[in-house]
Amino acid sequence: MPDTTEMKDHVYKILELVGSSEESIEGAIQNALIRAAKTIRDMKWFEVVQTRGHIENGSVRHYQVTLRVGFTLEE
Amino acid sequence: MPDTTEMKDHVYKILELVGSSEESIEGAIQNALIRAAKTIRDMKWFEVVQTRGHIENGSVRHYQVTLRVGFTLEE
Amino acid sequence: MPDTTEMKDHVYKILELVGSSEESIEGAIQNALIRAAKTIRDMKWFEVVQTRGHIENGSVRHYQVTLRVGFTLEE
Amino acid sequence: MPDTTEMKDHVYKILELVGSSEESIEGAIQNALIRAAKTIRDMKWFEVVQTRGHIENGSVRHYQVTLRVGFTLEE
Amino acid sequence: MPDTTEMKDHVYKILELVGSSEESIEGAIQNALIRAAKTIRDMKWFEVVQTRGHIENGSVRHYQVTLRVGFTLEE
Amino acid sequence: MPDTTEMKDHVYKILELVGSSEESIEGAIQNALIRAAKTIRDMKWFEVVQTRGHIENGSVRHYQVTLRVGFTLEE
Amino acid sequence: MPDTTEMKDHVYKILELVGSSEESIEGAIQNALIRAAKTIRDMKWFEVVQTRGHIENGSVRHYQVTLRVGFTLEE
Amino acid sequence: MPDTTEMKDHVYKILELVGSSEESIEGAIQNALIRAAKTIRDMKWFEVVQTRGHIENGSVRHYQVTLRVGFTLEE
Amino acid sequence: MPDTTEMKDHVYKILELVGSSEESIEGAIQNALIRAAKTIRDMKWFEVVQTRGHIENGSVRHYQVTLRVGFTLEE
Amino acid sequence: MPDTTEMKDHVYKILELVGSSEESIEGAIQNALIRAAKTIRDMKWFEVVQTRGHIENGSVRHYQVTLRVGFTLEE
Amino acid sequence: MPDTTEMKDHVYKILELVGSSEESIEGAIQNALIRAAKTIRDMKWFEVVQTRGHIENGSVRHYQVTLRVGFTLEE
Amino acid sequence: MPDTTEMKDHVYKILELVGSSEESIEGAIQNALIRAAKTIRDMKWFEVVQTRGHIENGSVRHYQVTLRVGFTLEE
Repeated sequence: MPDTTEMKDHVYKILELVGSSEESIEGAIQNALIRAAKTIRDMKWFEVVQTRGHIENGSVRHYQVTLRVGFTLEE
Repeated sequence: MPDTTEMKDHVYKILELVGSSEESIEGAIQNALIRAAKTIRDMKWFEVVQTRGHIENGSVRHYQVTLRVGFTLEE
Repeated sequence: MPDTTEMKDHVYKILELVGSSEESIEGAIQNALIRAAKTIRDMKWFEVVQTRGHIENGSVRHYQVTLRVGFTLEE
Repeated sequence: MPDTTEMKDHVYKILELVGSSEESIEGAIQNALIRAAKTIRDMKWFEVVQTRGHIENGSVRHYQVTLRVGFTLEE
Repeated sequence: MPDTTEMKDHVYKILELVGSSEESIEGAIQNALIRAAKTIRDMKWFEVVQTRGHIENGSVRHYQVTLRVGFTLEE
Repeated sequence: MPDTTEMKDHVYKILELVGSSEESIEGAIQNALIRAAKTIRDMKWFEVVQTRGHIENGSVRHYQVTLRVGFTLEE
Repeated sequence: MPDTTEMKDHVYKILELVGSSEESIEGAIQNALIRAAKTIRDMKWFEVVQTRGHIENGSVRHYQVTLRVGFTLEE
Repeated sequence: MPDTTEMKDHVYKILELVGSSEESIEGAIQNALIRAAKTIRDMKWFEVVQTRGHIENGSVRHYQVTLRVGFTLEE
Repeated sequence: MPDTTEMKDHVYKILELVGSSEESIEGAIQNALIRAAKTIRDMKWFEVVQTRGHIENGSVRHYQVTLRVGFTLEE
Repeated sequence: MPDTTEMKDHVYKILELVGSSEESIEGAIQNALIRAAKTIRDMKWFEVVQTRGHIENGSVRHYQVTLRVGFTLEE
Repeated sequence: MPDTTEMKDHVYKILELVGSSEESIEGAIQNALIRAAKTIRDMKWFEVVQTRGHIENGSVRHYQVTLRVGFTLEE
Repeated sequence: MPDTTEMKDHVYKILELVGSSEESIEGAIQNALIRAAKTIRDMKWFEVVQTRGHIENGSVRHYQVTLRVGFTLEE
């Protein structure tokens, strides 16, 4: 949820992203945000929608995390 | 849902927004739409996904409503 | 939920309705009930299933609320 | 969803049906509507709730589709 | 689900009911069906949607079970 | 959601409440919070879980809103 | 749901409990309520959230039922 | 859920079954487990996914319960 | 759902499969069943859990349908 | 889901679309993708979120399918 | 789920908490439990309900995890 | 989701597993896959269904993760 205290007059847009990492669930989240930050300013919060992954030779090859990300629509 | 009678050949895109209002749930919906209308034409319908809010001193400070909004992709 | 204290021997039927209002979510609920009351007696409770609406010129044109309504099946 | 543009003052009732077809999912939807149209006028929209089917000798025998169907409550 | 083997050409309608019993969940289901059988022929299957109840003096006073009931629409 | 910017070291507890009002959905939310504020300090946010109501003579008698309310566990 | 007719000015709190019984689902519900009644007055209704159980030697050893229980917050 | 205290190094597999009984929901659960125990050792817990049934002459003919059953994958 | 009329003493097992087809959703269902029928006898019914697909050059390359399939556990 | 084997370092964005067709569910999916392909490159997969439609004279007038579509965010 | 083997006569209460951590999802879970352990004895199990977080400068600032925690109601 | 590009003619089976780890959520996923790989070849992807755990002395004793795992049915 947006930070309701300080940002009360803003409108947020929610974007849905999938990030991946060979290391961890947290890494997949970070990778999605790093890429999105190239074009979106003012991302405020995220929510994990789904955690999946790819298996190779009986072991996790990548984690893939689907995120909803909220950012402020600038005035 | 899109207006199926008249707009049968259109494709719609769905956007997800969060609006807020100190007054009411309806106000939070309207504020989200007013802001979105600055950049999006042809919004046709919305659906309330979640109703939340912020509490200050034991009372509602703002309502925050998450909307899915459908608009026509122009040809 | 039905009023469990007084009506313990009753069986309820649940009906699903969509009402609309240009004013408010509460107005859409009331309009659905007023219309349903023409043919159904003994409506006891409702539950909001979905809140949607139609947008015109970037503003809410109508709220549309889907309700489940419970009423007593008379003996 | 009801057609919000033209039918703004209507109240809709939602009916739940199961249709079946040996041919296709679309056929099961059509068969449910054809049967319902014998007694219900003014059906406006449907929503697929569940798609199931029966298997005979390792192959689909019928598709069975559960629909919610909205129709106008006439004044 | 409807009996797909024998009844392949039928269309089913689904009704939603709430029954109650002071004794058991099964009793609440049976009471709903007994009442519905007064006006509906050819009920074929049910599905439990919700199980609730009323508490009096710290003990269950009634079980209340919400059912979806499928019945054949006669030709 | 808790205010993540300023309150990062806090742990929140979530409480579930039902409030009612004869007037509006917003009124039912406010009434639940007013009552809860008698014993709970530091309520920060709420989320609407369900909106229901009671019908009398074919009209809404009360709105009943189920809320999840988050408050800070004090150190 | 709370009894909306008689208790319209009350605010309810919802508690979540897990009860168990070697005998039946109803027994697990009753055992949860009996224990809760030691400290909570004015429990009004419950809703079954989940039904699970433990298996020993290929047979049910206990039923475990998760309940949401509503009780009146006293003025 | 698996018994987390004693079985911490185990991996569980979850199986989905449908059992039926003319008598009760508990009977349908037991019948599914009795049959499964013929080929599966070390079943530990179950969870009820759905409760349905068949109606004959306006009364319950069988209860049908869908279960998820967890059992230990032996080393 | 299993055919409750004739098969009342059976226990069913539910299997989850993903089939694909370049042609249609129905084709993906059939392909999953054809493959499963090589090792599983007595498949009775299926339920569509998810419909997805792969896109190539802006067009559907395959439909992929996830099914739950019920079959009789033989005595 | 994204193709996890070959595209492991990519981040995907998910878009939500509604397409329609007078012919079939598959047609509605294709129409949404054809329109989206005018502005989005590198669409990789879709998932059907909802299948609805419009009824005219007791028969299906259009199918309307809501899709989530994943595409690669180019570096 | 409670440990069904050893604790069969207990009744559990379920509490809902939100914990946060700048490091990891696991850290947010641990921080919630550490704080809760100050006042609650006999916590037995938890279940993750939601994973969210706060973003600052295009990177995760905190993870926030909502937990349901079960603990034994002492006799 | 299966890798739709390369494996278009395959049918997948989905298995549900619970793994545990004293260290992390990722560890619980890996432990489930390592054990499953002893008997299942060609596991391709997984999806996290639920994350739970056991608490001892107010701290996490094990994480337990329920997975759906897809593997190719060999021709």
